[in-house]
Amino acid sequence: MAKQPMIHQVYFWLHDEKNVKEFLNEAVPMLGKCPTVARFIAGVPADTEKREVVDHSYHVACTIFFDSLEDQLAYQKEPLHLEFIEKYSHMWKTVKVYDIAI
Amino acid sequence: MAKQPMIHQVYFWLHDEKNVKEFLNEAVPMLGKCPTVARFIAGVPADTEKREVVDHSYHVACTIFFDSLEDQLAYQKEPLHLEFIEKYSHMWKTVKVYDIAI
Repeated sequence: MAKQPMIHQVYFWLHDEKNVKEFLNEAVPMLGKCPTVARFIAGVPADTEKREVVDHSYHVACTIFFDSLEDQLAYQKEPLHLEFIEKYSHMWKTVKVYDIAI
Repeated sequence: MAKQPMIHQVYFWLHDEKNVKEFLNEAVPMLGKCPTVARFIAGVPADTEKREVVDHSYHVACTIFFDSLEDQLAYQKEPLHLEFIEKYSHMWKTVKVYDIAI
């Protein structure tokens, strides 16, 4: 069966806005180093026009490409990912994920 | 000033699930043809594990890369984009957007 590439799109809302820089520069790069990640892009809300349909309220977003659903599953169990959660989960109040088959 | 690359991440919830194929294969490709779009990726919910933090409820997602905020603004006014809205907006009940500076 052909591999199904996908995007694992994650949005974090932090408890404290003053942690954004540390979270962006020290925390989420750990996720990008996980071995099954094909491409990792971290970002923050873009300064685009305010419209009802646009949610600018999150603090940090990660766009993570995987070459297959299996690679995403492996990522969920990856020690570096679990270390990220253990070390930084106290910083976020909400996390929201969309998994997209592409 | 340096250009700010960004991702314009859009999720559509359709009124009728039977329109997904047409929306994915005929409607959203119009967006990908807009001239300021740097990269366009359309997708559907991936068959990943059901978890509380993962929203699999949308029908179609578009991951649209722009080289600058200005390119995204131009896209909003692009005739082909407006034609897409006029032709297909009756198909969706909800659209949600996250703009990410990367």
